[in-house]
Amino acid sequence: MRELKHLESVGALLGWDEQTMMPPSGAPGRAAVMGTLASIEHERLIDERYGELLETLADEPLDEDHRAMIEMAKRQRDIAVKLPARLVRELAEASSLSQAAWQEARNADDFLIFRPHLERMLELKAEQAEALGYADEPYDAHLDLFERDATVKKLGPMFDSVSAGIKPVLDEIMGSEGREAQLPSGWYEPEAVVRYCSELLQRMGYRMDSGRLDLSAHPFTCGIGRGDVRITTRVDPADPKEAILATLHEMGHAFYHLGLPEAWLETTIGASASFGVDESQSRLWENHVGRSLAFWEGELPRAKVLLKPLGGQTPEQIFRAVNRVEPSLIRVRADEVTYPLHIAVRFDLELAICRGDLKAADLPDAWRQSMQQHLGIAPQTDAEGVLQDVHWSVGYLGYFPTYLIGSVYASALFAAATKDLGGSGEVAGLFRAGKFMPLLEWLNRNVHSLGASKKPGALIAGATGSDPAAGYDTTPYLSYLREKYGDLYSF
Amino acid sequence: MRELKHLESVGALLGWDEQTMMPPSGAPGRAAVMGTLASIEHERLIDERYGELLETLADEPLDEDHRAMIEMAKRQRDIAVKLPARLVRELAEASSLSQAAWQEARNADDFLIFRPHLERMLELKAEQAEALGYADEPYDAHLDLFERDATVKKLGPMFDSVSAGIKPVLDEIMGSEGREAQLPSGWYEPEAVVRYCSELLQRMGYRMDSGRLDLSAHPFTCGIGRGDVRITTRVDPADPKEAILATLHEMGHAFYHLGLPEAWLETTIGASASFGVDESQSRLWENHVGRSLAFWEGELPRAKVLLKPLGGQTPEQIFRAVNRVEPSLIRVRADEVTYPLHIAVRFDLELAICRGDLKAADLPDAWRQSMQQHLGIAPQTDAEGVLQDVHWSVGYLGYFPTYLIGSVYASALFAAATKDLGGSGEVAGLFRAGKFMPLLEWLNRNVHSLGASKKPGALIAGATGSDPAAGYDTTPYLSYLREKYGDLYSF
Repeated sequence: MRELKHLESVGALLGWDEQTMMPPSGAPGRAAVMGTLASIEHERLIDERYGELLETLADEPLDEDHRAMIEMAKRQRDIAVKLPARLVRELAEASSLSQAAWQEARNADDFLIFRPHLERMLELKAEQAEALGYADEPYDAHLDLFERDATVKKLGPMFDSVSAGIKPVLDEIMGSEGREAQLPSGWYEPEAVVRYCSELLQRMGYRMDSGRLDLSAHPFTCGIGRGDVRITTRVDPADPKEAILATLHEMGHAFYHLGLPEAWLETTIGASASFGVDESQSRLWENHVGRSLAFWEGELPRAKVLLKPLGGQTPEQIFRAVNRVEPSLIRVRADEVTYPLHIAVRFDLELAICRGDLKAADLPDAWRQSMQQHLGIAPQTDAEGVLQDVHWSVGYLGYFPTYLIGSVYASALFAAATKDLGGSGEVAGLFRAGKFMPLLEWLNRNVHSLGASKKPGALIAGATGSDPAAGYDTTPYLSYLREKYGDLYSF
Repeated sequence: MRELKHLESVGALLGWDEQTMMPPSGAPGRAAVMGTLASIEHERLIDERYGELLETLADEPLDEDHRAMIEMAKRQRDIAVKLPARLVRELAEASSLSQAAWQEARNADDFLIFRPHLERMLELKAEQAEALGYADEPYDAHLDLFERDATVKKLGPMFDSVSAGIKPVLDEIMGSEGREAQLPSGWYEPEAVVRYCSELLQRMGYRMDSGRLDLSAHPFTCGIGRGDVRITTRVDPADPKEAILATLHEMGHAFYHLGLPEAWLETTIGASASFGVDESQSRLWENHVGRSLAFWEGELPRAKVLLKPLGGQTPEQIFRAVNRVEPSLIRVRADEVTYPLHIAVRFDLELAICRGDLKAADLPDAWRQSMQQHLGIAPQTDAEGVLQDVHWSVGYLGYFPTYLIGSVYASALFAAATKDLGGSGEVAGLFRAGKFMPLLEWLNRNVHSLGASKKPGALIAGATGSDPAAGYDTTPYLSYLREKYGDLYSF
């Protein structure tokens, strides 16, 4: 386990470096190194002695944590064993080529460049699902890779409930006044924005002796190992909104990884419980904190020092600007209310692909139809449509739903934390005073310190006091949206 | 071979990151990851199937390059096989602890903090020498690890000849006028110095799409892989000399690694021929180019744009300042003439240690005596004496001589290149015009493109047209010093 975690750590650093520091000519060499690393990892996972050791340990009387550790190790090993080495290699190679083709296709706004690669990837992914096995549908095999126990049967109702719940909220907002709020236009000096984000992080409790803030094309968090969890952001000199919210988002991921129990770090449960739970931490800090009025009441005076064009603004103006709602084409730039609808588009399409109802060639049209259905708008170009996300090119089929699971979990956790911390008035007071430690400590205690020792559903149920059998309960999420946007747009 | 090179590449990136980017709290986790990587590498090297394959290939009719490839692989594997896994692990662990203790001891100027660690390291190194075996003396086993075929028998005469040759040159200089030349004092804006170094690199042919320039406590070069060779420098805002010369030094190493034949990169001969040959490349660009008058005649107008305090200077003044000679206590800040004497101190002490004539406890005094003997001065403190270098703390016993071998080889190569490029007047004209490609191409052709396919001595003999049996011929080196400093100080 220790060696496997060390190999993971190396992979994390290689990935971080690739996206932040690596000179462009290093790319082909780096891909080859990544391939070797993946094959060494796969080789160690499927090693028979490792399997025997795990079997032996599974028969021992173990405490709950050690049992979870062994179970998680067996899960990882089972997945590795089920996949033929040939398929692992072909997927790795095809996805490297496919990602490059996707980049080119998106730049050229030409789906045909990407199509043969996407077809190949979907073929390999279909083979992968068969190798992994599933109870009801092939899509379940993919979903489970990113979110333990997630199935179409459980996710379908979540998507239906969220779409149905958001529709009236969105209709109210679209019929309201004051929707045009934006941060003041002007030149936000990039160095000042980065410095502001860095100072903000440190005020909120992220420490630069165990992390870094860098720039990258797509913001991400990288847990390299003990005491080393790095984040990135990106800066638009015309609008600092994304830089700030992305920084808070990634900080949420980083807090999770920094809060994992040190004694478990070199084991299988020294990790986040799932992609969905990980995303709940980033959404919580981005949306429930960074998009709240109380946060800006405390933060704005400090923000004005470095972000000059904010000079004449009130906290209410910033609050409105960071919560502006408008159906739009690009997921990563979507507001909090329409964001889930972008995920619903992808869920529907992935399901249709996995059921064999949709071919790669028909994806651009299906995309437009699904956007029209869920958001009421459709892209003119594939670059702003089916080509916008990297995920399918690298084989991340089944990943998108974890973004919505993250939002759903975040609301449940924030509601429970708010109650424990004395109610929403109390929490707003803390935010206004720049005090985030009580919230962070609550998350440390109820989420971070449990690592992957519990399944996602059980972990969230334990933290929120809800019924673990209830599945993805969307009530707190929809209440939060209705309440917040009802206040903002007076409905 | 390919996998071993990929593991090396990973190790290189981990090392680069550790010295440039890693947040401090990441250190313990990183050390553990490095340990795992080293053990995976050792495990693969000693794998019996690998040994059998190499034996089989050695019996095949192979061309010269493939034969060299297999020989080099066997050399690496033989070294790994001779070392018990226990010793490899103990050395790795002890050196990690020892390096930390050395750092503390140097900061506190207290040799006693370092002493038990140094004793332990020297004990393990002695065991290593016995495990590796040697013909004449234990020191030979250490030397051979860094410089193939280097022995006390061959290096002794080189050191004697260099010391004897430098003495009259140094005496002449010390009795001359105009020794006090320095770059003008003033504030050299650190960002401007870094930008100048970066632009200088690019003018000289180092491309930022296959490299980077960063800052680190000790400048170094890191060949991470194909198309990715990074360098670092350090900046003193009171004096840009070291930043510029270190940049040119590391650029020399980088040119070597970038010039290795691409087809060999994932084999054992896709590497520099030895530490000494690698150092010849850095010394050549640092000393024969960067410390030449012609270089500054071309470069000074450009340097003045970013390095403001140089405003009123002439090329001759810069030339004098970067060639100022003065016996001093710290090796890394020594001038070109006294530098070899610092290496001689270390050679003598290492030899005495390996012969059992000198114990760790007596090193501080022995250091002072040896400094007095070779340089005529002695440090007041151990921080400026025996504690100044990191090498012994990490077990790099036998490494120092490669610095002098580098200087000796650099002069031989530069003399040969000068001849081939039409003589020193012609070469000075090229430098004055900022044209460095002809020299770089000569080095590419005669050194870089040969990788490690030849032994160091044979490679240098081939490039310079000298006798491969002549050993370390110091004639070109001493002529160069005598001529250059004779001109400078009129003797």
